[in-house]
Amino acid sequence: MSDFKIGGVVPPVVVSEREDHSLDIASFENLINRMIDAGVDGLFFLGSSGEVVFSTDAMRERVITEAVRIVNHRVPVLVGIIDTETERVLEHGRMAQKLGADAVVVTAPFYALGGLTEIADHFRIVARELDLPVFAYDIPVCVHTKLPWKLMIELGHEGVLAGVKDSSGDDINFRYLCQENAKAGHPLSVLTGHEMVVDCAYLCGADGSVPGLANVEPYGYVRMWKAAQAGDWATAKLEQDKLNELSHIFDVTTGVQGYAGGVGAFKTALQLMGIFETNQMPRPVKRLTGENVENIREVLVSCGLL
Amino acid sequence: MSDFKIGGVVPPVVVSEREDHSLDIASFENLINRMIDAGVDGLFFLGSSGEVVFSTDAMRERVITEAVRIVNHRVPVLVGIIDTETERVLEHGRMAQKLGADAVVVTAPFYALGGLTEIADHFRIVARELDLPVFAYDIPVCVHTKLPWKLMIELGHEGVLAGVKDSSGDDINFRYLCQENAKAGHPLSVLTGHEMVVDCAYLCGADGSVPGLANVEPYGYVRMWKAAQAGDWATAKLEQDKLNELSHIFDVTTGVQGYAGGVGAFKTALQLMGIFETNQMPRPVKRLTGENVENIREVLVSCGLL
Amino acid sequence: MSDFKIGGVVPPVVVSEREDHSLDIASFENLINRMIDAGVDGLFFLGSSGEVVFSTDAMRERVITEAVRIVNHRVPVLVGIIDTETERVLEHGRMAQKLGADAVVVTAPFYALGGLTEIADHFRIVARELDLPVFAYDIPVCVHTKLPWKLMIELGHEGVLAGVKDSSGDDINFRYLCQENAKAGHPLSVLTGHEMVVDCAYLCGADGSVPGLANVEPYGYVRMWKAAQAGDWATAKLEQDKLNELSHIFDVTTGVQGYAGGVGAFKTALQLMGIFETNQMPRPVKRLTGENVENIREVLVSCGLL
Amino acid sequence: MSDFKIGGVVPPVVVSEREDHSLDIASFENLINRMIDAGVDGLFFLGSSGEVVFSTDAMRERVITEAVRIVNHRVPVLVGIIDTETERVLEHGRMAQKLGADAVVVTAPFYALGGLTEIADHFRIVARELDLPVFAYDIPVCVHTKLPWKLMIELGHEGVLAGVKDSSGDDINFRYLCQENAKAGHPLSVLTGHEMVVDCAYLCGADGSVPGLANVEPYGYVRMWKAAQAGDWATAKLEQDKLNELSHIFDVTTGVQGYAGGVGAFKTALQLMGIFETNQMPRPVKRLTGENVENIREVLVSCGLL
Repeated sequence: MSDFKIGGVVPPVVVSEREDHSLDIASFENLINRMIDAGVDGLFFLGSSGEVVFSTDAMRERVITEAVRIVNHRVPVLVGIIDTETERVLEHGRMAQKLGADAVVVTAPFYALGGLTEIADHFRIVARELDLPVFAYDIPVCVHTKLPWKLMIELGHEGVLAGVKDSSGDDINFRYLCQENAKAGHPLSVLTGHEMVVDCAYLCGADGSVPGLANVEPYGYVRMWKAAQAGDWATAKLEQDKLNELSHIFDVTTGVQGYAGGVGAFKTALQLMGIFETNQMPRPVKRLTGENVENIREVLVSCGLL
Repeated sequence: MSDFKIGGVVPPVVVSEREDHSLDIASFENLINRMIDAGVDGLFFLGSSGEVVFSTDAMRERVITEAVRIVNHRVPVLVGIIDTETERVLEHGRMAQKLGADAVVVTAPFYALGGLTEIADHFRIVARELDLPVFAYDIPVCVHTKLPWKLMIELGHEGVLAGVKDSSGDDINFRYLCQENAKAGHPLSVLTGHEMVVDCAYLCGADGSVPGLANVEPYGYVRMWKAAQAGDWATAKLEQDKLNELSHIFDVTTGVQGYAGGVGAFKTALQLMGIFETNQMPRPVKRLTGENVENIREVLVSCGLL
Repeated sequence: MSDFKIGGVVPPVVVSEREDHSLDIASFENLINRMIDAGVDGLFFLGSSGEVVFSTDAMRERVITEAVRIVNHRVPVLVGIIDTETERVLEHGRMAQKLGADAVVVTAPFYALGGLTEIADHFRIVARELDLPVFAYDIPVCVHTKLPWKLMIELGHEGVLAGVKDSSGDDINFRYLCQENAKAGHPLSVLTGHEMVVDCAYLCGADGSVPGLANVEPYGYVRMWKAAQAGDWATAKLEQDKLNELSHIFDVTTGVQGYAGGVGAFKTALQLMGIFETNQMPRPVKRLTGENVENIREVLVSCGLL
Repeated sequence: MSDFKIGGVVPPVVVSEREDHSLDIASFENLINRMIDAGVDGLFFLGSSGEVVFSTDAMRERVITEAVRIVNHRVPVLVGIIDTETERVLEHGRMAQKLGADAVVVTAPFYALGGLTEIADHFRIVARELDLPVFAYDIPVCVHTKLPWKLMIELGHEGVLAGVKDSSGDDINFRYLCQENAKAGHPLSVLTGHEMVVDCAYLCGADGSVPGLANVEPYGYVRMWKAAQAGDWATAKLEQDKLNELSHIFDVTTGVQGYAGGVGAFKTALQLMGIFETNQMPRPVKRLTGENVENIREVLVSCGLL
């Protein structure tokens, strides 16, 4: 079993771009420092909302380098080493390790078709050939395979996995994962990526959360975590409800879908709040403009963030 | 509209590995030369069955370099520059261009969620920033998005696309693609990847095919293409029927699925036929062994290939 | 093995409604007689486009009664006995048998979750307890299960199934179904429901077709069948291409989807051609109106049907 | 807005069959009386696990008649009037109304393809033509359409819907449904069917639950509801955790799937506990036997139910 444990609020950090799509370091510092000041327990770079699949290897290297420098050991740095299959993932992992990541986050293989045998061996090879704790990233909406709780706990027992970040939306599997992980001696740090029901995940026994919305409002997620730790579920629920009002930044836009509307809303909110200089998006995605920006501004105003 | 036209049989070339997963060049030469001698009209490297998503950038470079050297202009070399999003695809494209590819093959973006807007802009950016003909690769089973015929023809008209390789299994969309492409002045070279109904695709008006099974039996596909060209559909159908008997190499294996059973069957057949030295597979996929190999041998014997 | 064989063109008959949703018998006669006069080889009532799932038991009884009376043994009458699970299907089957159907058409069970065991037993029970030939109706878009060719041929051998109507869009499975059915001594009459690639299905070896579009244009489908029978594939392809131009009645409408746009287009075309009195649709579906009707008219005009 | 409100624990009642598949009334009484004695707040008959889609109209009539008689106004009787499209649903609804149901439960239309327009009109017609409160049943795994929270609240406002039973597993949509329903003046009674995370649903603000597992263990669900009402979330979580141990009756079986393994496990547990006389299943589903029964027995023993 892995010695690396992590819990609490571990936001997946959004990437700030200049107009020319290069990394906007000043904005990146603003964002990271604000979240650490708010009391988050770790930061996850190069996740799905951290533009990992849009970034060249050079861009990934730059993001990790700056992240490690800015964070400067204040909290653990988790890095997504997300790519299609094992050899490519390993290359990203060696780079993350060299640049100072504290842990890596790995999805099931994707694009090529396979089954649980390939998934299990993928995690085993990655864990064996890297010297960092490995988190499984369960995100079927992107990789089109679900990681079953039985396999996760088995790989926790083997010492292959240090934890699981669950963005699957499969609440029954997640409950079993929490419950059976506890019965098994808690080999895994279990984190939820379901930012709109984090209070429920904590009630289920999750160790922490990876909420994208914490880029915009980290304070509420930190308060919710403290309330949950104290067993004050009424407060935890109220904090989540307030965050969910903010989450309407996702559904006040029109004519966009997927990444453009999701991460696009994060970046637009951060720009409106003065944290990011632009809301530039990676190609081929277009930034939000016009009425979509105004609608997000209204949500921020009504949530007291502007 | 693009000047680059291609038709006939353009097999997606399977990659030969040594035990240590490095490229087995002698076997690769055997395979390529045998297909060219059989009369194929082009070769497609680094497609889905050409291990593209399993290969590091260094391995991709090596495959293209050797492919261009071995083919030596006898037929056009198409290269898959398959990756998640635009910037990453462009890097592969620049490498393919530098190494001498004749055309590149590009899927819809994958992993991150998006829509037709992002897909269209993806192809437009790739076509604009590379100096090679671009083929759209329609493979929803891997990228989980379908490329609609209307968009394909629109991008053909714009000069963005030179053609489409359709592995979607959507036969109605494919029929419209062929029929409307003809009405529109034939801007696109339309190729089917559906190796088991190539005769039907030709009857629909397809310009050619990209059959994985041609790695094992190129002669039948070449004869089928000639029969179809001559309007001899009875012969075309008979050739396809015979090839479909060979395709049972996919369903005589047990305990494997996806890539392991599909490309694994190709490699095992090629090894049994003495064309490949091993049936080694890329990590994390395991090679076929034992009874699975024997069952494939039996199919080859019954089809007269052993 | 079943003695009942059917081939050629077997259209799935669309139902004519009065404004009050009752059966419009005069229009129904127009439609049926026109198709029989055109030379179709059978008629399939209460299929997916024959409003089977919208019809009460009383309405189903009325449709079968009138169908049997109007057809009057000129061609075989196939009847869909489509419902969720076995006991309900059997009740429809007993009614169809009593009213004079020549064969029944049965889907996989739907709504409740199950597997191949339940599907196979479902067909076996239905075949055992009815005295009519049973056709399996493979329509995963409606029932969300695919019927594999191996099971179909096994049930043909058992004498459970007389045939298969394939509306699955899985062209590889269909090819195997045709090819392995031939090798197995042809226990099944194999019909395709894929109205836009019927020529290809015939080339694959299909015994016939069940094209919805034949409600609007039966003559082309009859000519295509004759051409295919004569081995004149160029003509078969030309007939299919012409029919596909007509099929644009499905994609010239806006603001509607599914049944409203599909069967709605059939009924609107039939009304415009004077065969149906109204284009009324079953609740909760609304009929096509306004510009959607005009766009369909234009397609009919350009195809020479108006 | 509807006057009918319901909350708390409303189990979906499993149907007891004799060997010949007729209704075993004595067992049915055992089951119903035990749940009412345990303190449930309502009972839902002819739901997905209540064999609705397996039952002929005559069987449905018998189930409702006996249910109304046995319950005898001790708790409200909700009845599923589940069928493919509007006219068929209305017929079931008129029967349920005549036989004394207190409310009806209606899914989105299924089998035929459509969109939100048809779904909304379906609920509107059903509500208009019946004199009973209508609950929307959101079960995409069976009907393959998801009911979005915005539409549900809109139909609540219109007075069309009295509530929603959510078995969708979409926890984000469910959270919005609860939260926006509260903001909108609570037009809907919101019930969760997700029996393994009912504590979370209550924390989200759900009015009640429809847990199939309460057929086997109603007492824990009643205790959980009381704890949640009292704001004692630690106890609610503990009760849910204990129930989840019982839920392993679903995953200790082998060789079965779907209804056979799910409702089959309920019936087998009820037989082992002496509440049901048989674990007979509706055709074409087979009952659990042999080792599967023994494995379920072990779960019951370890949970203290045997």
